[in-house]
Amino acid sequence: MDAGEILDELSREVRELSLGCTGEVARIEGPPDPLRFLREFVLPNRPCIITNAIDHWAALRLWSNSYLCAQLADYSVSCHFTPDGRADAVVEAAVESDLLGLGYENGDGGQEGGGIAEGDARGLVFASALVEVLPFPEALNHVLRSSRECSVAYLQQQNNCFPLEFSALSDDADGDIGWASQALGCKPEAVNLWIGTQDSVTSFHKDHYENLYAVVSGEKHFTLLPPTDVHRMYVKKYPIAHYERTDSGSLVLKHDDPTSWVPWVSVDPSLKDSDLQTAKSQYPRYFEGPPAFECSLRAGELLYLPSLWFHHVRQTPDTEGRTIALNYWYDMQFDMKYAYFNLVESLTASSSVSETISKHSNS
Amino acid sequence: MDAGEILDELSREVRELSLGCTGEVARIEGPPDPLRFLREFVLPNRPCIITNAIDHWAALRLWSNSYLCAQLADYSVSCHFTPDGRADAVVEAAVESDLLGLGYENGDGGQEGGGIAEGDARGLVFASALVEVLPFPEALNHVLRSSRECSVAYLQQQNNCFPLEFSALSDDADGDIGWASQALGCKPEAVNLWIGTQDSVTSFHKDHYENLYAVVSGEKHFTLLPPTDVHRMYVKKYPIAHYERTDSGSLVLKHDDPTSWVPWVSVDPSLKDSDLQTAKSQYPRYFEGPPAFECSLRAGELLYLPSLWFHHVRQTPDTEGRTIALNYWYDMQFDMKYAYFNLVESLTASSSVSETISKHSNS
Repeated sequence: MDAGEILDELSREVRELSLGCTGEVARIEGPPDPLRFLREFVLPNRPCIITNAIDHWAALRLWSNSYLCAQLADYSVSCHFTPDGRADAVVEAAVESDLLGLGYENGDGGQEGGGIAEGDARGLVFASALVEVLPFPEALNHVLRSSRECSVAYLQQQNNCFPLEFSALSDDADGDIGWASQALGCKPEAVNLWIGTQDSVTSFHKDHYENLYAVVSGEKHFTLLPPTDVHRMYVKKYPIAHYERTDSGSLVLKHDDPTSWVPWVSVDPSLKDSDLQTAKSQYPRYFEGPPAFECSLRAGELLYLPSLWFHHVRQTPDTEGRTIALNYWYDMQFDMKYAYFNLVESLTASSSVSETISKHSNS
Repeated sequence: MDAGEILDELSREVRELSLGCTGEVARIEGPPDPLRFLREFVLPNRPCIITNAIDHWAALRLWSNSYLCAQLADYSVSCHFTPDGRADAVVEAAVESDLLGLGYENGDGGQEGGGIAEGDARGLVFASALVEVLPFPEALNHVLRSSRECSVAYLQQQNNCFPLEFSALSDDADGDIGWASQALGCKPEAVNLWIGTQDSVTSFHKDHYENLYAVVSGEKHFTLLPPTDVHRMYVKKYPIAHYERTDSGSLVLKHDDPTSWVPWVSVDPSLKDSDLQTAKSQYPRYFEGPPAFECSLRAGELLYLPSLWFHHVRQTPDTEGRTIALNYWYDMQFDMKYAYFNLVESLTASSSVSETISKHSNS
């Protein structure tokens, strides 16, 4: 049996035993008993949507745009700008590639990666947003006008921003999820506020946290794959680039100098039909394997997103044009399950399982 | 990186992250909070010894030999006999090998094993005890006289025997471990009583249960290895044989006809010094890897033995010449961790990791 077959069997078996094969995410009525939540979801690393868990939050009723601007009139917040709504994502570099000068030729990206393949497609980079600190009303204005501006704005500072940058809103939502804190035996390490539109998409990645993700307004659409599917994600090292603003106000990609590299998932599950055929031939294990877990969260619903699950997130705005969410990151346990995950990652990297089978063309 | 290196790294990492590197088993004062027990031990699959958890059991004070014989005077119980105290263990077959006629030559043991190597040492078999149902006082007498008889007796029927064969003792110990039932969300699947002496040893094996193991009298000595060490256990398929009693009363090994095979751990951690050198060259991954977890349980102490942990058990009798224990088997979760374990088992079987490096000789 080769590594690919063993890993495919893992993908199948974890669905048959525990996660289900249909790609549906369990729904439970909350708030759950902490013991049950720990036993039935955290222990088996199984996501679920919890209803009736945040109904008491004033945020659900209060957070109109005008209320937010009034409360945060004098606050400055970190606003993330990209040309296309894809921050921390693998994108094709601009045609003026001398702007990037990424030195793919010398292959020095291979030196630190512990066997992770370099992105084999010339011209693909991992692009970070431009972050500008702006008065909240101005930032919100950029978010809401995203589709009419030459750049997309997203409030998504993931550094415990809710109690820090948005402290004026602290009374409107809980500082932790009580039953989750009881179950996990700690308070959240970070609570982050997200305000965006349909123009912003979060690319596939995983976090080293147990995550409770609450939607306050609008809808969030999650595509989830378990950590046991890491060999289906085609994690490769991409050179890091970041957006800068030119004098004319438009955004351009600049590579880090000296070039640094980050391992990132190559698969994008939200491609246009015209790009899908190429992706299917490049990433067959993703597209031919068991279906991803798909779910949509409405306002007032909470997702338990288990540690190390790959997630890709899209959003639908409410009638005021934005989607608002809060997420709670709790420390995960670095235990036997994590050691097993690292083994599977090593096995993927040391075999040819996750190599693309055809070169990407820029056509 | 080859499979052996990846698996050795797993062994090391799980100790560094979670289990500790010294081979010590955590001790906590009980009874623990069910949430804490679930989070700190069951979730990470980490053993612990719990004190003050069964102090209220009348069994601890009442279970003298005379009390047991009085309570169970009219009860029949299943008594396990072997010549040497090793039941369900890999043993060398008797010299009269035509008694066994095990057909090693035809290699048909390989047909069902999913890649598990056959025991390569001619003459080794998996030996099951002879089980005889006897009045309790007579059975206890055999147990106590083990070292003076030509066979060793062990009360160890693992089929929920405590409420079944020993129902007269039900009031003396709990039918379940309350906080464990709360944590695990169910009652035990089986509760087993064990009465033995220093002459009985339980060979390395794993159970598909969460196990709570309480010592009532005497001491139990556990050698434990986590499921992540499966590649160090040299699991091979051995032909099954069982002891039968001859007309003269002595025990002889008879093979199952047709031959059936069972995968079993080859390593024995309790060898005499004279056999140790051979074992070290046969099973280097066991003897050269990180140390096993060793612990001794005294009367009144409880071991949480997590699902799938390999365990080898010896015992020291009390002043009345016996060791008494009760164990509670709770259903385990067949979840992501179990799927990971199966992957590691497949990887071990499909590589040469667990092959012995020299043939065993009978000298």
